Amino acid sequence: MPERMVDVGILGAGGLGRSMVELMQHKPHLRLAAICESAGVAICADGLELAEVIAAAERGSVATVPDAGRPSEDSIGDVIAAGEALDAIFVALPNLPNSFVPDVAARFAAGGFSGVMVDALKRTTAVELMLEQHDTLRDAGITYVTGGGATPGLLTAAAALAAQSFVEVSKVELYFGVGIANWDAYRATIREDIAHLPGFDVQRAQAMSEDEITEELNRRGGILELVDMEHADDVMLERAGICDRHSVTVGGVVDTRHPEKPVSTNVKIHGRTFEGKESHHTFTLGDETSMAANVCGPALGYMNAGLWLHDRGIFGVFTAAELMPRMQPPRPVDSGQWSVASETQARVARAF
Amino acid sequence: MPERMVDVGILGAGGLGRSMVELMQHKPHLRLAAICESAGVAICADGLELAEVIAAAERGSVATVPDAGRPSEDSIGDVIAAGEALDAIFVALPNLPNSFVPDVAARFAAGGFSGVMVDALKRTTAVELMLEQHDTLRDAGITYVTGGGATPGLLTAAAALAAQSFVEVSKVELYFGVGIANWDAYRATIREDIAHLPGFDVQRAQAMSEDEITEELNRRGGILELVDMEHADDVMLERAGICDRHSVTVGGVVDTRHPEKPVSTNVKIHGRTFEGKESHHTFTLGDETSMAANVCGPALGYMNAGLWLHDRGIFGVFTAAELMPRMQPPRPVDSGQWSVASETQARVARAF
Repeated sequence: MPERMVDVGILGAGGLGRSMVELMQHKPHLRLAAICESAGVAICADGLELAEVIAAAERGSVATVPDAGRPSEDSIGDVIAAGEALDAIFVALPNLPNSFVPDVAARFAAGGFSGVMVDALKRTTAVELMLEQHDTLRDAGITYVTGGGATPGLLTAAAALAAQSFVEVSKVELYFGVGIANWDAYRATIREDIAHLPGFDVQRAQAMSEDEITEELNRRGGILELVDMEHADDVMLERAGICDRHSVTVGGVVDTRHPEKPVSTNVKIHGRTFEGKESHHTFTLGDETSMAANVCGPALGYMNAGLWLHDRGIFGVFTAAELMPRMQPPRPVDSGQWSVASETQARVARAF
Repeated sequence: MPERMVDVGILGAGGLGRSMVELMQHKPHLRLAAICESAGVAICADGLELAEVIAAAERGSVATVPDAGRPSEDSIGDVIAAGEALDAIFVALPNLPNSFVPDVAARFAAGGFSGVMVDALKRTTAVELMLEQHDTLRDAGITYVTGGGATPGLLTAAAALAAQSFVEVSKVELYFGVGIANWDAYRATIREDIAHLPGFDVQRAQAMSEDEITEELNRRGGILELVDMEHADDVMLERAGICDRHSVTVGGVVDTRHPEKPVSTNVKIHGRTFEGKESHHTFTLGDETSMAANVCGPALGYMNAGLWLHDRGIFGVFTAAELMPRMQPPRPVDSGQWSVASETQARVARAF
């Protein structure tokens, strides 16, 4: 029996949300208490049966989860209403429009939620809007980690870590390869990727019909080559004091027809040491690790890090470049692993 | 003018301590207020002139720093006595005996120091002894980061980060290359490395005369091949919940006669994803980055992370695998970047 059971809610039951449910099958200390999609929700304080949630999502809607599922006209509102029972939320909602996820976070704050939230946002503008919610979420007692997926997320944190060897970071280059066997399950993600293609933008990608997207993919043989992407790694590394946002470039290749990665995903951190040497460190992901593994694993790690901070009364919005994700949820604070001497606590309290 | 000036003390003026002073020349927010070696100390609350400290150390003793330097029979005690003026301590003392650094930390706690401390300890036993000081240091209001160098440190943190993609980590392999042009400046480090050679141990290495060490190096053409090293990466990754300590191996090659690394330092993290795929991520350090850059840079990053925790009243012993180092010292808490809502603060306070 784990020392601590964490009650989790997932917003979104597309490819990302569904992968998170699958990952949770390996995490006995996590209990899925709520999951929603645009027109349906499944909620059970005692924990949903993960296999049933996956089956329902595959049938087309989590509303069909036996007993716990139902259609909903405000599924996010329904999860907020169940917020008392939730320790942490994984936000697997579409990134577009950029204000969508930040607005949802603000709704949770207004609705009285006071736990941990983690998103896997990708776009710079979305993360910037999220960072603007800092005071609102802090005052609500929410610890929010933004950009906690793969890139930004795992690779951004690797860049922030690697940067420590240098007194000046001149360039951070992220280059990813993604192979998707069943792109149908990742429609929202692919729509976002299309917005990064030369000649496309967010508005145009949003306006495309499903047929138009299929056509565009066919025209490109299923390969999307993305350059100079608006990825939040830039603002996250700038905020962490690593380098100017313009020194960060993000590009990659997405193969929507094969599960193999067309290139090895990597990040190179170029800089100058205090001795004046120019060099770079490289962090390379194993080709056999999927986008789902590299997004959902780190996101859970940041959820654990968020719980650690939350237990200690530290609230507000943090980025994945500022925190080390944790493999396990923290032990309860009263277990003796950590506590503050009372005199010091009084001193800290006076400081506010 | 930086937002915050951090007053730093350095324990040890050998190769590592001296490199840290050189690195500090690039860090305008750090002020070196004290540095000591076994029989000498230099202290100045207004900040020592870094170039003068380096020159004095190269002359043979920081006791010769103009005005601020003097011989001392208890140089560590002298730094503790000046502790009120110090925000953070970098511990660059010899690793051997294993209890040396943990005992020094306990002396700081007993002497009333209540700031941040960071070490670059290497050996498992030393870090384990350090972790045993958790309650003592927490109660003293000290935030202590242990194993905050390169390996353990930078590479351990990279392993902890990379592990997030996997549901099970089967193996972590650290392999380093070190090139030293002037091994004379790294006598203590090399003595520790010799203890890792087949047929040697800590006692034998400690008992060797300088001539015997030179002889041993000559016999090996200046090359030390180290296998199955007792490096604290194992206990740090185990404590962080990443994997069993026996799944961590550390080896490497030290060339004591050439500054070039004989192999590229890297860490490979092997694991299985939630989808059942076996793979590994790799983090590789640039060959042009020196051991000094990869130890001292991360150590300062962990000092900044320690200050961030300390500002928030979080004390005790943490390892480098649990924290993300920070490129800059945190802004003062009262700057509005972070604070706790008063109601929540009260709730947190009640929890203790």
